[in-house]
Amino acid sequence: MVPPLVECVPNISEGRELLSVDRVQAAICSVPGVLPLHRTSDWDHNRSVLTFAAPPDVVVEAAVQAVAEAARNIDLTRHVGVHPRVGALDVLPFVPLHGVTMQECVHLAHAAGARIASELGIPVYFYAEAALQPFRKRLEDVRRGQFEGLLESAELDPAKAPDLGGPRLHPTAGAVIIGARKVLIAFNVNLNTPDVALARHIASQIRERSGGFPGVKALGLALESRQLAQVSMNITDHEASPLHVVYKEIERLANNAGVEVLESELIGLMPRQAMETAAAGFLRLTNWESSSVLEARIDAARQEGS
Amino acid sequence: MVPPLVECVPNISEGRELLSVDRVQAAICSVPGVLPLHRTSDWDHNRSVLTFAAPPDVVVEAAVQAVAEAARNIDLTRHVGVHPRVGALDVLPFVPLHGVTMQECVHLAHAAGARIASELGIPVYFYAEAALQPFRKRLEDVRRGQFEGLLESAELDPAKAPDLGGPRLHPTAGAVIIGARKVLIAFNVNLNTPDVALARHIASQIRERSGGFPGVKALGLALESRQLAQVSMNITDHEASPLHVVYKEIERLANNAGVEVLESELIGLMPRQAMETAAAGFLRLTNWESSSVLEARIDAARQEGS
Repeated sequence: MVPPLVECVPNISEGRELLSVDRVQAAICSVPGVLPLHRTSDWDHNRSVLTFAAPPDVVVEAAVQAVAEAARNIDLTRHVGVHPRVGALDVLPFVPLHGVTMQECVHLAHAAGARIASELGIPVYFYAEAALQPFRKRLEDVRRGQFEGLLESAELDPAKAPDLGGPRLHPTAGAVIIGARKVLIAFNVNLNTPDVALARHIASQIRERSGGFPGVKALGLALESRQLAQVSMNITDHEASPLHVVYKEIERLANNAGVEVLESELIGLMPRQAMETAAAGFLRLTNWESSSVLEARIDAARQEGS
Repeated sequence: MVPPLVECVPNISEGRELLSVDRVQAAICSVPGVLPLHRTSDWDHNRSVLTFAAPPDVVVEAAVQAVAEAARNIDLTRHVGVHPRVGALDVLPFVPLHGVTMQECVHLAHAAGARIASELGIPVYFYAEAALQPFRKRLEDVRRGQFEGLLESAELDPAKAPDLGGPRLHPTAGAVIIGARKVLIAFNVNLNTPDVALARHIASQIRERSGGFPGVKALGLALESRQLAQVSMNITDHEASPLHVVYKEIERLANNAGVEVLESELIGLMPRQAMETAAAGFLRLTNWESSSVLEARIDAARQEGS
């Protein structure tokens, strides 16, 4: 049997001095049982995203080590970048991958938060499924005001105070926003036009916030170097909003404006089920089931036989 | 490490007396190491397809047992059905799945054929990659004349004589057509029209034999009970002819005639890579690689760590 596995995706506020990013990555990997999965750094955002998986009894220790190492290496009073942030280790989501429930990931998030506040002296906000206050469900709401704003307001305004370890933010490491959520797909569709107004219009039609697809966040952006407009998405619930449904609607809205979809790109990793569901959807397969996959059937036959 | 694995897909000439099919299946599964994957029987065809996987050192034994049990239970002199056939166990392909080359599957096919001819006294033709004569590459060419025709002509016409164990066919079990080939996808697309002429036209445009996609065999059929026309396909090289490419061309040809694709159906199993490639193709993903799949990355990280 495959052991239970949790994905953890620390977002750290450093995307330029890669030695610091290396140190945080090394701290994570120093914990036995960690599986490093992906890593990406962005200069303009001055931010890195480290993705790893680990069994539940290991993932909290690795997360705490990551926060400690980020706090040693990153000073937010000297940090600039276009991406909003509150902490040196800014966002820390726990994601159920296999053999683990969302509720268990909520508990892991709370356990990590308790250790980070008490052992490291860095305050913590809880978001998404781990939120303790309803107005902290959405990450963008927690992050409003960013490090500089919250450094001033958290002590004065109880609605801004961290859930643990506050009310004052750490003077250089800020606070960590810890959560539990489903797997997220970061997926961008490029339109064969420089018309960013069209990309913004499409984004406004498909995102959940304005009545579009559940779990879809979308922005219209200009890719200036390529003279293309992009619909940039985070799909936080690919079961409710499958890729083929979202893609076809973007294509339909673009075609209505006389524009073609040029291409799309995946940022990071994609759950296998999302790919298979998309293929079955595009092909209009009526009798699709995940056990129709040859390799899945082989794995099942192996388990029945053992 | 996952051990090497060969797929074997015996087609037997019995789809009505399921007790006989059960016995052949039981004979296959009696060989230790066999993984039964799929089984389907068709009354009109009076034929069953049994799919299993096994390590190379096991698969030949299971195949020989299947031929022996089919010969004990099926008498072709009393067999009727719409599907052409030459043997009680009619077709026996070996397919490289994992850690095995096509050339090794050719050797396995030849080893199975030698045992079937010498130990069971049932003659053998070799087709596809295992063909010993160029005019036996295509299964439909080997099968021409069927059991009844070849029973008469095989002794008289050297071009009809089996490759091993001939020239006379077995009086009730006929001959076994043994081959090595890639994984095959059996995939049907239903058009929202009863116009079988359109399905036949589309089939003629997409199949390899008339200049269409490599490795695609296609027929236009009428689904009389549903008043629908169907493009019925075997895709024998899904890497050369990916599903999204074939599907989009069928859709384009149907739309040109003012007809919509209603749905599609998969017969049997689909290799995972075919689904992922199709999804990436439909989505126009420019940066897709199989290691972009979260679960694939986890497996790779596990292997690097162990």
